[in-house]
Amino acid sequence: MNQPYGLPAEVEDLRQRVRAFVRDVVIDAEPVPGDRLAAETRAELQAAAKAAGVFAPHAPREYGGQGLAIEHWSPVFQEAGYSPIGPSVLNCMAPDEGNMHMLELIATDEQKSRYLEPLVQGRERSCFGMTEPHPGAGSDPEALLTTARRVPGGWVIDGEKRFISGAVGAAFCIVMARTEDDGESPAGATMFLVDMDNPGVRIGRHIHTVDRYIDGGHPHVHFDGCRVDDAAVLGGAGLGFRYAQVRLGPARLTHCMRWLGLARRATDIALDRAQTREIFGSPLHELGLAQNLIAESVIDIETADAVITKTALLLASDPRAGSALSSVAKVHCSDAVFRIIDRAIQLCGGDGVSDGLPLAQYLNEVRPFRIYDGSNETHKWAIARRASSARRKAVASGEPFQGVAVERID
Amino acid sequence: MNQPYGLPAEVEDLRQRVRAFVRDVVIDAEPVPGDRLAAETRAELQAAAKAAGVFAPHAPREYGGQGLAIEHWSPVFQEAGYSPIGPSVLNCMAPDEGNMHMLELIATDEQKSRYLEPLVQGRERSCFGMTEPHPGAGSDPEALLTTARRVPGGWVIDGEKRFISGAVGAAFCIVMARTEDDGESPAGATMFLVDMDNPGVRIGRHIHTVDRYIDGGHPHVHFDGCRVDDAAVLGGAGLGFRYAQVRLGPARLTHCMRWLGLARRATDIALDRAQTREIFGSPLHELGLAQNLIAESVIDIETADAVITKTALLLASDPRAGSALSSVAKVHCSDAVFRIIDRAIQLCGGDGVSDGLPLAQYLNEVRPFRIYDGSNETHKWAIARRASSARRKAVASGEPFQGVAVERID
Amino acid sequence: MNQPYGLPAEVEDLRQRVRAFVRDVVIDAEPVPGDRLAAETRAELQAAAKAAGVFAPHAPREYGGQGLAIEHWSPVFQEAGYSPIGPSVLNCMAPDEGNMHMLELIATDEQKSRYLEPLVQGRERSCFGMTEPHPGAGSDPEALLTTARRVPGGWVIDGEKRFISGAVGAAFCIVMARTEDDGESPAGATMFLVDMDNPGVRIGRHIHTVDRYIDGGHPHVHFDGCRVDDAAVLGGAGLGFRYAQVRLGPARLTHCMRWLGLARRATDIALDRAQTREIFGSPLHELGLAQNLIAESVIDIETADAVITKTALLLASDPRAGSALSSVAKVHCSDAVFRIIDRAIQLCGGDGVSDGLPLAQYLNEVRPFRIYDGSNETHKWAIARRASSARRKAVASGEPFQGVAVERID
Amino acid sequence: MNQPYGLPAEVEDLRQRVRAFVRDVVIDAEPVPGDRLAAETRAELQAAAKAAGVFAPHAPREYGGQGLAIEHWSPVFQEAGYSPIGPSVLNCMAPDEGNMHMLELIATDEQKSRYLEPLVQGRERSCFGMTEPHPGAGSDPEALLTTARRVPGGWVIDGEKRFISGAVGAAFCIVMARTEDDGESPAGATMFLVDMDNPGVRIGRHIHTVDRYIDGGHPHVHFDGCRVDDAAVLGGAGLGFRYAQVRLGPARLTHCMRWLGLARRATDIALDRAQTREIFGSPLHELGLAQNLIAESVIDIETADAVITKTALLLASDPRAGSALSSVAKVHCSDAVFRIIDRAIQLCGGDGVSDGLPLAQYLNEVRPFRIYDGSNETHKWAIARRASSARRKAVASGEPFQGVAVERID
Repeated sequence: MNQPYGLPAEVEDLRQRVRAFVRDVVIDAEPVPGDRLAAETRAELQAAAKAAGVFAPHAPREYGGQGLAIEHWSPVFQEAGYSPIGPSVLNCMAPDEGNMHMLELIATDEQKSRYLEPLVQGRERSCFGMTEPHPGAGSDPEALLTTARRVPGGWVIDGEKRFISGAVGAAFCIVMARTEDDGESPAGATMFLVDMDNPGVRIGRHIHTVDRYIDGGHPHVHFDGCRVDDAAVLGGAGLGFRYAQVRLGPARLTHCMRWLGLARRATDIALDRAQTREIFGSPLHELGLAQNLIAESVIDIETADAVITKTALLLASDPRAGSALSSVAKVHCSDAVFRIIDRAIQLCGGDGVSDGLPLAQYLNEVRPFRIYDGSNETHKWAIARRASSARRKAVASGEPFQGVAVERID
Repeated sequence: MNQPYGLPAEVEDLRQRVRAFVRDVVIDAEPVPGDRLAAETRAELQAAAKAAGVFAPHAPREYGGQGLAIEHWSPVFQEAGYSPIGPSVLNCMAPDEGNMHMLELIATDEQKSRYLEPLVQGRERSCFGMTEPHPGAGSDPEALLTTARRVPGGWVIDGEKRFISGAVGAAFCIVMARTEDDGESPAGATMFLVDMDNPGVRIGRHIHTVDRYIDGGHPHVHFDGCRVDDAAVLGGAGLGFRYAQVRLGPARLTHCMRWLGLARRATDIALDRAQTREIFGSPLHELGLAQNLIAESVIDIETADAVITKTALLLASDPRAGSALSSVAKVHCSDAVFRIIDRAIQLCGGDGVSDGLPLAQYLNEVRPFRIYDGSNETHKWAIARRASSARRKAVASGEPFQGVAVERID
Repeated sequence: MNQPYGLPAEVEDLRQRVRAFVRDVVIDAEPVPGDRLAAETRAELQAAAKAAGVFAPHAPREYGGQGLAIEHWSPVFQEAGYSPIGPSVLNCMAPDEGNMHMLELIATDEQKSRYLEPLVQGRERSCFGMTEPHPGAGSDPEALLTTARRVPGGWVIDGEKRFISGAVGAAFCIVMARTEDDGESPAGATMFLVDMDNPGVRIGRHIHTVDRYIDGGHPHVHFDGCRVDDAAVLGGAGLGFRYAQVRLGPARLTHCMRWLGLARRATDIALDRAQTREIFGSPLHELGLAQNLIAESVIDIETADAVITKTALLLASDPRAGSALSSVAKVHCSDAVFRIIDRAIQLCGGDGVSDGLPLAQYLNEVRPFRIYDGSNETHKWAIARRASSARRKAVASGEPFQGVAVERID
Repeated sequence: MNQPYGLPAEVEDLRQRVRAFVRDVVIDAEPVPGDRLAAETRAELQAAAKAAGVFAPHAPREYGGQGLAIEHWSPVFQEAGYSPIGPSVLNCMAPDEGNMHMLELIATDEQKSRYLEPLVQGRERSCFGMTEPHPGAGSDPEALLTTARRVPGGWVIDGEKRFISGAVGAAFCIVMARTEDDGESPAGATMFLVDMDNPGVRIGRHIHTVDRYIDGGHPHVHFDGCRVDDAAVLGGAGLGFRYAQVRLGPARLTHCMRWLGLARRATDIALDRAQTREIFGSPLHELGLAQNLIAESVIDIETADAVITKTALLLASDPRAGSALSSVAKVHCSDAVFRIIDRAIQLCGGDGVSDGLPLAQYLNEVRPFRIYDGSNETHKWAIARRASSARRKAVASGEPFQGVAVERID
């Protein structure tokens, strides 16, 4: 079930090398369930990944990545995600990976030198500052409360961010702030590149969540009179919401890719287990109720893989439509990977909920994905609205309206 | 949500023409719910389809089809299936479509002239004789009881078939029968092309099922001392089970394609309805519980579409792997289309279960698909066994075994 | 799985007699799938039911029923519902049964003599006129458009009703109409007992639905200047919405009871089938994927039975709370019986979707129950609102508010 | 939604006192998520519970409990379980509670004095030694490998147990061991009361699982030449499997009760949260997709409560049938509480997966319940087999066989 097909030879070659690297090198270095990857181990593994030519597969070659096009990320990211530390080791983990993608698309050359290059090379980490304490920006980005006001030669940012994954130890943060119409640029949101050692930046309270594999925590970050230069503006002022979509569509899809890799891992663990257990006199994998769990996981894996492929192709050809479809992929894949890992636990019985196997930690690892990057309920709401609107437009432009029931006299 | 992408221009052109033909011509001719398409109406519509250049889209051009490659069938078949009579009008309905595909792949030139050509051109209909009364061939084809024994210059077939869709009015039947090892060919199953007016063929009892859109019923067919020539053997003697896989993989996938088209239709009906209904003071389509139904249907549509695309590509490049994946597609799509139509009914309230809308008939139409072409339970059993076997082989060939729980001393 | 427990001896005795009567007498008289029960057959069977002392089990003894208390209806109604025509034969079918219950509770003695007695004795049928064409009363009863205005000595009713189950052949209709505040009674809805041969009553268009076992269709009924006496008012003027709750709570619960009986029947059919089929060399009932279907149906049956029991007890002791809980029972049971019958079909394969077994008709029979008596989405909306409101009140009255996340400094 | 009904006054009084004690005293003492209850805190809280007259509600009064009959445990245990430490504080937590129940039913008076009394009074803890390392006793108790052989005046037990919840710090263990037919008693399993300080008992490796609220871990326990007196036999020799059922049916049902209490807690947290959050301009609790989650949780709560009530009544009147039904209750409730807590997390967004709220820990707490006390798959297998067997017997004793499809000639 693991063979993609129709990949260009060089992509398939990279996939195979990532696969070998993860299985031969990374898995052995995994921390025990509940622990985090030590910084020095990560550094050693990253060096090995560079040596193996598998580092930053999605990033531009000129900055040190492997230059994969987005429509080919999925098979490679799935291989990386087969280990929960694989994406971090290969430097294709959130939030850095999404930041790299956005910087590549909208940063100036100077910004790329200063921020993208060290990020791609793993010399720096970054974070993305959008979410705010209630009632600020969350599932609804438009509720943004953080502000930036123009001052001579620059801007001053004030506000509080929350759930800023990776903030501890990050070199910089891409901050969303509300900006006024100033004649030059429209009112809206603007993105700023803010160094984390800026004296106006302060890490606040920590939010301890159930996941373990994103470095740098999920703390509050405070911006108090945080002064930045004009050069800190990423893309055009006032266009932040539009850029956010540029970042968020692919970013949520790469989560799907990585976690699907982990779901495949969980299934392999369960299949190995089912192979060696007997119950009521039969091997577990021959029992129908186990087979039902296995089959449902395979179906989840294949449909998740297929909808990721479809979305990635669409993101490459029509980013706006691709971003809309990424809502569908996000809901389906985040639900599917949770179910898959949950079934793997069930197949492993008591060991499945112990730290003798990593499955219970995997379940905690993927649980938040149904919430972050837009909760599944928010996405479903958006999906329904888009479907209603698209159909309304189709009818307005001539499709026959089919909503009338015909009643007969007899 | 309905736009495919990345299709070659001529495929997209055909898709558009099919779409226009179905919406402009076919829908108006649909029988009321519960009725069947009259033979003369079908003949007129088929003539119009030929004139519009949309007839038999999947069949070879040399015999009168449009010559689409299998990896491009899905968008076109979905457009055809948007009307429940669309596939019949376009001559891409089961069982003829599957028979055409198999004849194209394994028939002799002479057999193609005699059987494939009139079939493609809609001058004849056909059926496929595999299923038998219990305990014969069903979900388990190997339980085949019908036999064929060699006689000088030909064969004599004896046995009873059941659920032979399309048999009434068919010109010929492709019959699976058990054959002995005769020195020339191995023991196994052999396929025969049998004319339905052969005196050894008799239509038996009818099975009245809830669907309406496959012509020719689902009767028993009896073969009593049915004498055929050597030229009636389709492909090689003894290779019938292998050919059955050639037929069944694509055939179950084309069901997915057609019924997904109908699921889109049901969703459009429901969206139109939700647009014009108010309840508790709000338009129905803005109510969250309706939005939940709509979103889940969109997710089902997109994942079904994606896994069909993936399977069709694989069938084109690696028929054996594609046939295995078609089990996944079959289970997912047959469940999904049932859920989608069921949700559409729910969105339409009382009218949804009346014949004022066609939805209740649609539900009856797709219900059997979870059973025929291998019940979903049989496919899940096969999917689980393949997954276990593939993993066992991977471990045997060096993948690390991961099924051991590590216990610690503390 | 069929044994209730803790029933008073006379209730258990009645249950056993109903069970025997249905299995020994009623089942043999069932029409073939898709057909309806002939009027004369029903009359004969009703006579037999009276002779067997099982007629109108829920109705007062003084009018000819068996006088069961509502908390004991469930085991008896489930036995009746084991045959799809059982409730009609035993005169405990909708809408008559719900009308009897409401008349018993709020009619005057005179009204009881005139309407309840012949209804209980099966000499008349009745209907309930609440639902209206969009945008009138439906899932939201308050949208009521039909009006009744006072005239000397009586009232004049004007309006159109729709989906009036049982109207054809009914002797009378209980009609909900909007009435003004007239000094004596508050503005609101009022219920009227209207003879169907009143010249102001006219049966309109028919709505053909997928069910077969409610006599008298689901037509439109028109009230055009329909003049009734003061004695036609059922209960107090202006209190109709309150009475509607009195009727609707128990009425939707008795649907649960009857259909659960049918779900048990479907499961028995499937179990019998699974007993005698072999596939891949094993009896079907020993195959795990079949066992999964069977187990899930048993779980659905038992939980449906349990929540019905709970709700019936609550309706007996606290009708308002019982009516609220009946929303939960309605959603769970209507979903459960649909799933149960659907699984039975799946277990029976091709025969399951044919009319050789009654299962496909059963599925059509119960499909509308997820829509009528308030669609499941409407009930879920109400359930959620009640839960939110109850919790809000609990917090207001001193329960600690628990919705604040505690963040720590480390 | 939380009010039971029809409870005897003294039971309702106890329920109210437990409710008040848990909400006023216990909740404030809860450890932060991920931590365990400190031993001294538990001791203080237990003293307070005794003072409040709510201690050991299910245990006999003569030994210090409140003497509740099993059919009334559910409302009281649900109140206890509203706090995850409530059952431990009230001394009605597994495994002690199940051991108390079994000792009450089958221990000698002397054994009750020595083991039951200190257990009820909270002076000692206990464990239950059934599960063994693979391929020993697990979901299939009959795979028992631990043996006991008769020696003069007693027995010698040898074997290894695993997942022995509560073993660390327990005063005694009830051990299942295989025993031979010795003329006096049949071959089978025998239960022994073994003091944990017996020199033949040794705690082995620990299994670290995701739950936190069962004291005493889940270690291996080794019995190496463990010598016990004849008085250590619990009940009759050779009858252990029968006694295991006596223990396991009620024990799995009390898990359902306690965890359902925790599921109610999670729902209250989520409802409070939904009350105070706004998103897209509306309070969260008014948004349809949130309402859908809330309604589904209410339905799960009510059906779980109802099937527990039904099972408890049946256990009281017919323990064998009750034990069979407890499989249904176990599967439904363990699935339901997991879904309920999972939905509560979803409603609380990011905070739901943080330790700012206890929900993520609750999810880890109940996840194992789908596995222990017999995995849900094992129970479903047993449920299906019982259903098939019961139906087979019904048909054998005269019920009409309904598995034949009728085919017609037309």
